Amino acid sequence: MADEQQDGKGGAGEQPGAAPAEDRLTYEESGVDYDRIDPLKVLAQRAARSTGANLDGAGAGAREVPASRGESAYVVDIGDAYLASITECLGTKALVADAIRESGRTWYDHIAQDTIATAVNDLVTVGARPLSIHAYWAAGSSDWFDDVERMNDLVEGWKAACDVLGVAWGGGETPCLTGVVEKGAIDLAASCVGIIRPKSRLTLGEDLAAGDAIVLLESSGIHANGLTLARKLAERLPEGYATAMPGGRTYGEALLDPTVLYPPVTEAAFEAGIGLRYIANITGHGWRKLMRHPGRFTYRMTDVPPVPEVLRFMVDETRQTAEEAYGSLNMGAGFALFVRPEDGDAAVACAEAQGVRAWVAGVVEDGPRQVVIEPAGVTLSGESLALRD
Amino acid sequence: MADEQQDGKGGAGEQPGAAPAEDRLTYEESGVDYDRIDPLKVLAQRAARSTGANLDGAGAGAREVPASRGESAYVVDIGDAYLASITECLGTKALVADAIRESGRTWYDHIAQDTIATAVNDLVTVGARPLSIHAYWAAGSSDWFDDVERMNDLVEGWKAACDVLGVAWGGGETPCLTGVVEKGAIDLAASCVGIIRPKSRLTLGEDLAAGDAIVLLESSGIHANGLTLARKLAERLPEGYATAMPGGRTYGEALLDPTVLYPPVTEAAFEAGIGLRYIANITGHGWRKLMRHPGRFTYRMTDVPPVPEVLRFMVDETRQTAEEAYGSLNMGAGFALFVRPEDGDAAVACAEAQGVRAWVAGVVEDGPRQVVIEPAGVTLSGESLALRD
Repeated sequence: MADEQQDGKGGAGEQPGAAPAEDRLTYEESGVDYDRIDPLKVLAQRAARSTGANLDGAGAGAREVPASRGESAYVVDIGDAYLASITECLGTKALVADAIRESGRTWYDHIAQDTIATAVNDLVTVGARPLSIHAYWAAGSSDWFDDVERMNDLVEGWKAACDVLGVAWGGGETPCLTGVVEKGAIDLAASCVGIIRPKSRLTLGEDLAAGDAIVLLESSGIHANGLTLARKLAERLPEGYATAMPGGRTYGEALLDPTVLYPPVTEAAFEAGIGLRYIANITGHGWRKLMRHPGRFTYRMTDVPPVPEVLRFMVDETRQTAEEAYGSLNMGAGFALFVRPEDGDAAVACAEAQGVRAWVAGVVEDGPRQVVIEPAGVTLSGESLALRD
Repeated sequence: MADEQQDGKGGAGEQPGAAPAEDRLTYEESGVDYDRIDPLKVLAQRAARSTGANLDGAGAGAREVPASRGESAYVVDIGDAYLASITECLGTKALVADAIRESGRTWYDHIAQDTIATAVNDLVTVGARPLSIHAYWAAGSSDWFDDVERMNDLVEGWKAACDVLGVAWGGGETPCLTGVVEKGAIDLAASCVGIIRPKSRLTLGEDLAAGDAIVLLESSGIHANGLTLARKLAERLPEGYATAMPGGRTYGEALLDPTVLYPPVTEAAFEAGIGLRYIANITGHGWRKLMRHPGRFTYRMTDVPPVPEVLRFMVDETRQTAEEAYGSLNMGAGFALFVRPEDGDAAVACAEAQGVRAWVAGVVEDGPRQVVIEPAGVTLSGESLALRD
């Protein structure tokens, strides 16, 4: 089961010098209780894994790639190619757009891109090229559709993201689930199918090695993880989402900067022949995602990208420690490419040619499973990460 | 966009001899307002169609099959095979299971099969063999996971259906969407990817012709459409879901009989070399689904299958006319195969060998687009069906 908790976990407990507990805000306090959710995920992952042999000898000419089960997308071998598939939920970010609807915009074009990004950014981590996307938009009441501008923005934004990605919007579901979805709300998700062809593009990390360079790609802001915390913070601020941040933008509008779409970068890298040893989508759990590879490696980050203003604001206002921040938010890095050391600069140039800033920011080392973030004085250890079942 | 309104529309207005309005219950009265939902679906279908050329010349070696856009699953040509994909929502049926939780069972094993069925039964209509399924289970609060028996039933039921189908459960999403999904509720959906190989299996109905036989496959009960009406009826009955039906079973338990899985029948038909000219999944809009083919045909039904007790009960209690009933509920037929007249009996035998009762029940004729149900004295006309945009 792909690990995609949409709200990354913060909270490493009290730290020396941390702000008093009543000023701080962590995930448990926000109401997302991981101890309860994880049993379902673990049960489901095990049951799902047990179906893996269903394709064998079933006459379909297909079999699963078992190693993909710990990765961000599921892979099936169909002979001369692999198929990759995924379903991803936006989470609660649309509630932010709804809260600032009176701002004059609906922001659902951005929300559409966020939703698509949650799916495609995961799909491409296994080396796939996305082909088609299905939309899942479940409203809680018929009156959701009365906001014609919002409907149009959602549709146009969805199409625009598909056009940028060069994928087909194959269809979807637009049910009205009164009694299941909250009145006035909408549950947004995306499913994506992709192809890995030639098969040599399959990226599961078997070749990741000490010495490999870690290339970070910039984020645009919060992306789609950390929204429960972000919304709780808005409740505490006297001016809520309208709070002006130091640079002048309002908190709410900055939260709605759309997630960066990374497939154009991975496609360009494959076309340029840059060997991608591993790929990680930095979503829930923040920089802990850098150590999702099953191997015994230490990830030593010597540089950190600039932190987007909205994340700096959140961290400051919630008095998070650097460990909590880097362990739950993207902190300016939305995606990571792992390449041979000699390919680091080429990978950066590839990303920047696609309009995405990038940096050779770290190196893979043999050692205990951890992420060492030198400029922040933070070490994220492997025990706190249960990403692979 | 696949037309999959989970709650079929009843209501053809007053009929001569119909029961007084205050005794009757129709979809508008149930709160599902199709005039509002349809604009979004139409907007989305048009925008989605405009992305169709995104794959062309994009270096992916793939292009869409445009004719699939009016069908129940989306098809992409990848060279030596087609890929089919779909995402489908269960709808509100889980609320019935939740309402009768004190019955001693959770019924979520049945709910799991219903959810998977909504996806796979649509996918196979284009001739695909399902390969992998992704689960989408979005809860409204962390306490959903406290009902351990229910969690286990959902997981086990999901796995069991995958095992029956010979498909891999590839993964999924189990987010907690506080503020989007109602507290205590869960939004259930399934995504499915399939393969059409050899390409000759592609079934879009180009060869459907007058004289073709219509073979109906039995349903097990309500399946997953008509649940909003079913729930409204339960509110009106003095004993609600515990109401005993004439045969002795309670209304609630009968509603939860799981949807029949039809892929074993289509797989067997393809393997037996029975030419399937067209395939229709009877879901929302009841028997109107028999005329979803874009051609100008009349579908003359000379036989009708037995009506499951729970549907007979619903129709009687809500005082629906036969036209309303056949136009919104499956009325005993969950799936239809269209074959050459000489293949009718073979198709029936094929289904029955898979444990699904079937009947040669009608014939395709040249004529205005309508479904004529002779034993019920009902004609469903084509204007009331907006299934293809």
